[in-house]
Amino acid sequence: MSDAPDRELRISKIRDGTVIDHITGGQAMNVLAILGIDGDEGIGVSIGMNVPSDKLGTKDVVKVEGRELSQGEVDVLSLLAPEATVNIVREFEVIEKKRVERPERVVGLLTCPNHNCITNADEPVESAFGVVADGVRCEFCGEIVREDIGDHLAVH
Amino acid sequence: MSDAPDRELRISKIRDGTVIDHITGGQAMNVLAILGIDGDEGIGVSIGMNVPSDKLGTKDVVKVEGRELSQGEVDVLSLLAPEATVNIVREFEVIEKKRVERPERVVGLLTCPNHNCITNADEPVESAFGVVADGVRCEFCGEIVREDIGDHLAVH
Repeated sequence: MSDAPDRELRISKIRDGTVIDHITGGQAMNVLAILGIDGDEGIGVSIGMNVPSDKLGTKDVVKVEGRELSQGEVDVLSLLAPEATVNIVREFEVIEKKRVERPERVVGLLTCPNHNCITNADEPVESAFGVVADGVRCEFCGEIVREDIGDHLAVH
Repeated sequence: MSDAPDRELRISKIRDGTVIDHITGGQAMNVLAILGIDGDEGIGVSIGMNVPSDKLGTKDVVKVEGRELSQGEVDVLSLLAPEATVNIVREFEVIEKKRVERPERVVGLLTCPNHNCITNADEPVESAFGVVADGVRCEFCGEIVREDIGDHLAVH
């Protein structure tokens, strides 16, 4: 690497934490919402949105300092960013590369777009979706969400 | 400057656009909401949250590529981030430093926390707040918002 600033890097390396790379361009905010991060926690977060990428055209990158994501958190990310790569970093070195796998179910994270669904009534029922080939399917009313899953985050 | 990576920089320089620095720590997401940026626009945005700062303890930094903020946009930012500095950048050089000044009024940007306020009824009335010494005051019902103004953004 030369001494010239790397224009493609955009955001610096972190000492300890999690690097989520190859996020679908424009999905970084939704990724943060899933992780429950809005900045008030005081933890260091760096975000690059719509960074040029050979593989994806554009991509987002999120680096979370001092926090190592669990496999469960990583798997939920796959719904928004199926191409994402997740690296756990300690002392500037990648110590683990987590595989992103689609979960079988997503509980409590999404709201059903069907207004008549019982999960949208004022009842103590937690939303639950099964993951199907082309999206997610509400286990209560059968409604299927195929696109813009990030728009249905309950955590927004 | 040495060749060692600058741990404090966090996010790289941009060629053209706007650098908003010294944002109150944790307010970056609200700043983006005010600017109407959520990533879907496809423009390059870099964000550093809770970056160590001599002046503020921690701060947020937002760099928006290819967009030069207007004075009106800059002034509204002052409500969330009174210490913010705004630099317009072209070809990696700062060509203008905008002063952040508190606006006298804020129209359409905030929602009134008073549920009985006419701006929260289903009427074609746009919210309007006067900026007072210790916050903002609804011009319709007189409700004053002093803290956490970012929680009342209509654009969320």
